[in-house]
Amino acid sequence: MKYKANIQIMPLAALLDPQGKAVTHGLQQMGYTTIDQVRVGKNITLVVEADSEEKATALVEESCKKLLANLIMETYSFSLSLI
Amino acid sequence: MKYKANIQIMPLAALLDPQGKAVTHGLQQMGYTTIDQVRVGKNITLVVEADSEEKATALVEESCKKLLANLIMETYSFSLSLI
Repeated sequence: MKYKANIQIMPLAALLDPQGKAVTHGLQQMGYTTIDQVRVGKNITLVVEADSEEKATALVEESCKKLLANLIMETYSFSLSLI
Repeated sequence: MKYKANIQIMPLAALLDPQGKAVTHGLQQMGYTTIDQVRVGKNITLVVEADSEEKATALVEESCKKLLANLIMETYSFSLSLI
């Protein structure tokens, strides 16, 4: 069975996020003064083939830990859907 | 009222995504041969203050169109939640 994973990888809340700060500043300069606390991370989608949703979850979890996210600086979360 | 927006910005399906290709290749080299079609985009969270959910939606929509997403190469989608 094939599952589509939708993964969000964000900088840890405790860390500065210079890209987010720059975007916040840019939006405010453009007149969007009611927008604040912008944080910029990655959104990754992928297709995984596995026998069960549990196995697919385990594979995506492993990929996040080993390659996609840097756990020292980032957190990840994901959802799976059957395709 | 304050709303948290969760915005996903992804490269258009019709476009090549070199970063996604590199990640697909990386994962397959690491032995995750059942993972394919990786695409890498941005995930942006922000806080917007507005009188109503409609106004907050309009503000986020405008920010996406004017600054956050490049509509020639990317699509965006977002969800709002009251905080």
